[in-house]
Amino acid sequence: MDGAFLIGRESVVTTETFQAFDPSTDQLVEPAFSVSTPEHVARACQLADEAFDTFRDTDPEARAAFLEAVAANIEALGDALVQRAVQESGLPVARLTGERGRTVGQLRLFAKHVRAGRYAQVVVDQAQPERQPMPRSDLRQRRVGVGPVAVFGASNFPLAFSVAGGDTAAALAAGCPVVCKGHPAHPGTSVMVAGAIRDAIASCGLPDGVFSLVQGPANELGAALVTDPRIKAVGFTGSRAGGLALVKLAQERAEPIPVYAEMSSINPVILFPAALANRGEALAKGYVGSLTMGAGQFCTNPGIVLAIAGPELDRFSDVAAEALGQAQPQVMLTRGIHSAYSKGVEALAGNNAVTEIARGAEGTGCNRGRAALFTTDAQAFLADPELAHEVFGASSLVIRANDIDEVATVLRGMEGQLTATLHLDEGDEELARPLMPLLERKAGRILANGWPTGVEVSDAMVHGGPFPATSDPRSTSVGTAAIERFLRPVCYQDLPDALLPRAVQHGNPLGLPRLVDGAVEA
Amino acid sequence: MDGAFLIGRESVVTTETFQAFDPSTDQLVEPAFSVSTPEHVARACQLADEAFDTFRDTDPEARAAFLEAVAANIEALGDALVQRAVQESGLPVARLTGERGRTVGQLRLFAKHVRAGRYAQVVVDQAQPERQPMPRSDLRQRRVGVGPVAVFGASNFPLAFSVAGGDTAAALAAGCPVVCKGHPAHPGTSVMVAGAIRDAIASCGLPDGVFSLVQGPANELGAALVTDPRIKAVGFTGSRAGGLALVKLAQERAEPIPVYAEMSSINPVILFPAALANRGEALAKGYVGSLTMGAGQFCTNPGIVLAIAGPELDRFSDVAAEALGQAQPQVMLTRGIHSAYSKGVEALAGNNAVTEIARGAEGTGCNRGRAALFTTDAQAFLADPELAHEVFGASSLVIRANDIDEVATVLRGMEGQLTATLHLDEGDEELARPLMPLLERKAGRILANGWPTGVEVSDAMVHGGPFPATSDPRSTSVGTAAIERFLRPVCYQDLPDALLPRAVQHGNPLGLPRLVDGAVEA
Repeated sequence: MDGAFLIGRESVVTTETFQAFDPSTDQLVEPAFSVSTPEHVARACQLADEAFDTFRDTDPEARAAFLEAVAANIEALGDALVQRAVQESGLPVARLTGERGRTVGQLRLFAKHVRAGRYAQVVVDQAQPERQPMPRSDLRQRRVGVGPVAVFGASNFPLAFSVAGGDTAAALAAGCPVVCKGHPAHPGTSVMVAGAIRDAIASCGLPDGVFSLVQGPANELGAALVTDPRIKAVGFTGSRAGGLALVKLAQERAEPIPVYAEMSSINPVILFPAALANRGEALAKGYVGSLTMGAGQFCTNPGIVLAIAGPELDRFSDVAAEALGQAQPQVMLTRGIHSAYSKGVEALAGNNAVTEIARGAEGTGCNRGRAALFTTDAQAFLADPELAHEVFGASSLVIRANDIDEVATVLRGMEGQLTATLHLDEGDEELARPLMPLLERKAGRILANGWPTGVEVSDAMVHGGPFPATSDPRSTSVGTAAIERFLRPVCYQDLPDALLPRAVQHGNPLGLPRLVDGAVEA
Repeated sequence: MDGAFLIGRESVVTTETFQAFDPSTDQLVEPAFSVSTPEHVARACQLADEAFDTFRDTDPEARAAFLEAVAANIEALGDALVQRAVQESGLPVARLTGERGRTVGQLRLFAKHVRAGRYAQVVVDQAQPERQPMPRSDLRQRRVGVGPVAVFGASNFPLAFSVAGGDTAAALAAGCPVVCKGHPAHPGTSVMVAGAIRDAIASCGLPDGVFSLVQGPANELGAALVTDPRIKAVGFTGSRAGGLALVKLAQERAEPIPVYAEMSSINPVILFPAALANRGEALAKGYVGSLTMGAGQFCTNPGIVLAIAGPELDRFSDVAAEALGQAQPQVMLTRGIHSAYSKGVEALAGNNAVTEIARGAEGTGCNRGRAALFTTDAQAFLADPELAHEVFGASSLVIRANDIDEVATVLRGMEGQLTATLHLDEGDEELARPLMPLLERKAGRILANGWPTGVEVSDAMVHGGPFPATSDPRSTSVGTAAIERFLRPVCYQDLPDALLPRAVQHGNPLGLPRLVDGAVEA
């Protein structure tokens, strides 16, 4: 690995460099990586713009084969990729092996989705030359890529939400070239995956500019990317401050563009009385398992548990406290994340309205996050907006409500969320039903009798939600519906067949599913 | 007509009033209309929020019947509605009769679309309990309304883009209550149509808050509406300054919301050599007809004609000049629009790089817009960004290019457009084909051998386009795809059937079309 970044197929080395840290040892990791400049960003965006028309005009089959080639190339990197990601993220081998599987599975799912052709949403309204009082023109609609897309790698998924992660897969599937800013915490992982994409571009005969990777630790690089006039949409997963900064930059452009920022969520979990009475212990153990998995560094981490106060909830809390007390401290992704987590936990511990139930086991080593469990009552939670802020890591707050109405009041006061979870048994449904419309307003995904961590990559998944969970609740960052964020509709009226894109030609040479005169074509 | 506005079903009269002008006479029109205050806006938004859960939970059939009831009630207003709209807009009876037909047709098309159920985009990924290494949950996705929607009536379509216009129809179809700010130029028309909606709400047994109409001449009223925290999306058709102001307000909210503003477009028309040679005269007459229709007050007015210089283009210009010289001056919608049009035409006439080809006939009477035709060459056009700004009214600019490359250069320099039009005959396709990718990037609708005015309301229509044609190119304001702007996806994971909304229940009681495990359900 030579530390170069990629502008199209060109490996670029510069004199200014930065290095990754191994968070488990706080030591620098070799090699040094070249820092991209705004001029490199401009060059990458220019190449992306030049590649756009050719790339988006590829057949679905060609784009699908390309996505599959990227997946195969990532697998061909073998253990070296996982090892590098472990070193740069502190995440365990098993987790990153699983994440690699998810990443290539995601690419292959998008390949299948592109082949199925529904993404193009072809709609045909045939001409009605005899219609009175005015004839109807022949009208054909399809979705086209919005243009070059900027993707920001996320710290907490060095593979699945980074260089060849969900946003990149969705953008490429949509026919949009990608300029990726690798997350500075895992530059080596980023370079390896970028090479896999570059090689797939070459072997599939696509234009160089379909993908570039820029690297560097400074925010200015990201700002240069988002403000480049050739970029037409942005995908980001990270902090609320970071996401909002990108949204602001994008809105201030001469041509404002959409930013899909996934930012912040505390993912309320509601324990209903029968479930709590029947299986409080198992719930407590499941909760601590979900909370402490991956040092709690998931967007869907259960940051809030909400239940009606009473002996069953006390018992749940006791069991959870015991389980959490045995949780070993885990390496967090970066110094910055560890430091922010520690401050967040300290703030909770120092809040007079909050009681500490348990802390995870102590341990030695750098950047270890000790799990933390707190409790408060609904009135205190409602009175202090600070308590509803995400603490990124294995910290959670059990909220005791007096009754189901107070549960609803707490939910009503919450900001938008990625998920809302219900634990319920027979007898709980009557209490839960009135909450459903409220939960639909608050969250992108509502789940029962499971835990919000673990996001299936499929057609029906929604990993999104009302602000500030994301900056755009009309969209998802996981699952095939993510392709929609990088598409826009275009209508063709009375165009001769020879000028129509194949997707909407009369003979339907691409065999796309179509809606014709209001009916699904057989 | 008593001049009251509508907060839910309540007719509200206030002491502060305003009146419409008849632009054809510059006289005030009776009666005086009550001015709404920010408190009325807040009350309307509160009612809308309270109505939202009930309204969005209605069956598609119930919502479709409601839309049809609105249409029938508008028709039942009879000639009085058209007469009032004529008085307040200066538009001719025939035009407004047609626009009424379009408005009720639009409501009925959305009724049909809601009944067809595709809008809900139901996707089911069934549980796979045996899957290795992890079982798959049961996942169900549907689209739900985003929440109460603010709609701003447009001046130039007192019926089709106003109180019960496209945005209102799409929002109601999506299950979103609407708070409409009527355009202050046609308050009487707005009150009449609002009454038709109110009566349909009552006869269909829907909650009062499904619709409110607030009225008044001040921008503050619109600002209060867009910044109300209960409003979740905004539809607007009007000026670029007005649209951008609303976007800014919406972005500065604690919870930013999408604004669908249709703002500005000069709708380039490209005349290819064979078409120009074969039928230049007919094209010139068609052009002037499209340009002067409705005093040129259409978003899709052909503001730019672009062609290769030569005797054929000179002949086209001569015929167009002759036709335009006979065009009678037409009453414009408002004093402000007439004044802005006059200033825009004066600026073109005073621009040294521009030559006046023709002016429409002179005439007497207030607020009459005289059509205007100018010409310049491609280099001058490219050198002066002012020339690419929309002059709202019957003014257009013929741009002479040296060759097809210069045509492409002019198009490349243009901002986003609602439409791009090609006039081509046999032999022109080879010149046109290379422009297609560029046109797709620039416009929401590409049409051949017609004129951009006249927007079909259908499934395949796109009335939208890249910024600044609209603030959100992912969307259309005309046609059934407009419903998407007011929907967001929600996923349900492992929820017991009894808690699932009917749209995603296992037995599919609403009979909605579904995608199940990646395949369209038979």
